[in-house]
Amino acid sequence: MTDVTVEDFGSSLALTTAQGTRRFHAIWLRDNASDPETRAPGNNQRLIALRDIPADTRIAHADVSGNTLSVTFVPEDKTVAFDLAWLDAHAYDRDHSQPRGWVGPEIEPWDSGLMDRVPTGDFAALSQENAALQDWLGQVTRYGFGKVVNGPVEEGALFKIVDLFGHVRETNYGRLFEVRTEVNPTNLAFTGLGLQAHTDNPYRDPVPTVQVLYCLESSAAGGENMVVDGFAAARRLRKENPAYFDVLADHCARFEYAGEAGVCLTSRRPMIELAPDGELIGVRFNNRSLAAVTDVPFDKMATYYAAYRRLGEIIDDEAMEVTFRLNPGEAFVVDNTRVLHARKGYSGSGTRWLQGCYADMDGLRSTHDALRREMPEAAE
Amino acid sequence: MTDVTVEDFGSSLALTTAQGTRRFHAIWLRDNASDPETRAPGNNQRLIALRDIPADTRIAHADVSGNTLSVTFVPEDKTVAFDLAWLDAHAYDRDHSQPRGWVGPEIEPWDSGLMDRVPTGDFAALSQENAALQDWLGQVTRYGFGKVVNGPVEEGALFKIVDLFGHVRETNYGRLFEVRTEVNPTNLAFTGLGLQAHTDNPYRDPVPTVQVLYCLESSAAGGENMVVDGFAAARRLRKENPAYFDVLADHCARFEYAGEAGVCLTSRRPMIELAPDGELIGVRFNNRSLAAVTDVPFDKMATYYAAYRRLGEIIDDEAMEVTFRLNPGEAFVVDNTRVLHARKGYSGSGTRWLQGCYADMDGLRSTHDALRREMPEAAE
Repeated sequence: MTDVTVEDFGSSLALTTAQGTRRFHAIWLRDNASDPETRAPGNNQRLIALRDIPADTRIAHADVSGNTLSVTFVPEDKTVAFDLAWLDAHAYDRDHSQPRGWVGPEIEPWDSGLMDRVPTGDFAALSQENAALQDWLGQVTRYGFGKVVNGPVEEGALFKIVDLFGHVRETNYGRLFEVRTEVNPTNLAFTGLGLQAHTDNPYRDPVPTVQVLYCLESSAAGGENMVVDGFAAARRLRKENPAYFDVLADHCARFEYAGEAGVCLTSRRPMIELAPDGELIGVRFNNRSLAAVTDVPFDKMATYYAAYRRLGEIIDDEAMEVTFRLNPGEAFVVDNTRVLHARKGYSGSGTRWLQGCYADMDGLRSTHDALRREMPEAAE
Repeated sequence: MTDVTVEDFGSSLALTTAQGTRRFHAIWLRDNASDPETRAPGNNQRLIALRDIPADTRIAHADVSGNTLSVTFVPEDKTVAFDLAWLDAHAYDRDHSQPRGWVGPEIEPWDSGLMDRVPTGDFAALSQENAALQDWLGQVTRYGFGKVVNGPVEEGALFKIVDLFGHVRETNYGRLFEVRTEVNPTNLAFTGLGLQAHTDNPYRDPVPTVQVLYCLESSAAGGENMVVDGFAAARRLRKENPAYFDVLADHCARFEYAGEAGVCLTSRRPMIELAPDGELIGVRFNNRSLAAVTDVPFDKMATYYAAYRRLGEIIDDEAMEVTFRLNPGEAFVVDNTRVLHARKGYSGSGTRWLQGCYADMDGLRSTHDALRREMPEAAE
């Protein structure tokens, strides 16, 4: 059943296994060799550059035995063993077509149906049990947000949340920022207003990829936190009207914040950000800091504004939102490249005190993946 | 000479000034109004969302007087004044076509010709004089790197460089990392090897956008620092072979670092990163951490590898590189989204001790732009 054939004068091979036939190029195989002269046994970093591999590298011989493909490269006359499972997992001889706005299997778009199962971790368990932390970080990766409960009610406790997975990203707002609201009848008209769901700091490039908000006081009624999956909103927009999705993905918006001395932050990035192959990788949505959009041609600007309006309507749709209340000692973590957040209006008097900070999503994913690597039983 | 005409039943207007005729849409004008009900006078943040502006907004009346365009919007029946110079600066009714790989006027690609005028700032001047700091930050923005001389020779001095423009970005490597090399004849074969020019940490997403390297000891001969403009290299690749440029821009590479306990950093991003309209916004190049590339179809993989090889050859071309020596108390700052850096080989024995850290380019640009705003004579 397993078979290998050298093709095209040694520039590639065709490997047939139970998974089917996959072709691999000589140069790709040679560059991805895992022998100790090519990759450092300790940290797996590649020890050679492509310039160290002859441009005319060809396969002189290949055979399969058990779970191993053995390949001899010329002119180096070097024989390298490849694990068949590794080759199968890294096969690129496949259909790469995907619809614009695709997301990987580790991402699950959601709407208000997620309300009953908000990803929630217990502070003590997250701090002490790797399995609990790995599970919660996995949910934050999958859904783009997560709540923590039963944490300490003390200033700076939000840093203990960040310590679980990474490092604070300090900005001009400091290592942390205070969100204090005094809600009373005389200013209820103002503080009672909710804030439209938004992503934070789109005027930074890159944006802060994680935001942590930690509750220390909450005696006013109302003021619930609300989150919306920007990926789900963008994908719903595409389903309703592909031209709307495309015009927001194909043109850069501009964002700006220059509201304090010494700060003049500007960015030029699309509201819907795609990888070159159409993967949905980011959403920026923030009416307060949107600057004049000047990178859309005149004949597309009306469509651009109609699309921006419709995306806002989808974001405002209650069917898209998950709400939850933060009580003192509770926090939430949000993937700021994907999930929008907002505060609902207040309906009574009292105080509300949150502390917020930024951190990095790649560090969070790294911690999750490293925990998973160390717990093979959970690795599937 | 100045004239305005309402067009298309009030959905747009055509403004004629000495700069020519530019059209603007009613909805764009209304959204970008700067009256105190639309934008907060203090910090200029927009106070309303698009949902607060009627979808059927039309221009009922427009006229020009002096340097002001006055527009009355219905159904709001709201009249707003626009500054003609602001409108000219933000006009979008223009030709938007640009070649792939374009860069803005604030960016100047360079090659070895920059060697005689390496952007250099004096530590005391940068610390004390806004004009010196503004000039140096402007050069770092323009060229993607800059040197600092005459700084203190003390541990942690690199943080004083970061304090000039922003904040340290802490990672799993800590707030700072040590680069110590003992060069002696017995290990010369290893330490004497140069490192191919690379960008740092492409396995992060986002990558650290600024790297600072600060020299505390340097008694070994050789070991010069070398920088290459990744934007210039990518643009040269495009000039030589547009298909090579395209294949690296249109497909994601993968990068990985999982070489220590608790760390499993992975990213999926192209080596040449473009904005949706083809603006060159990032280069990732690092043979050590490149993982198996699996997002390129089989029929393009040979071209992909040929393009990757040619980009590496361009990067290795001495005609592209600028070298300089860092002596104790000297540092360099590099835009890690654009400029590659490397260390040359050593030719004698001794020690070399650098401290490095990461920071953010958007904060650096913000500090520069804020200084420029505060010094109008230098604003052009």
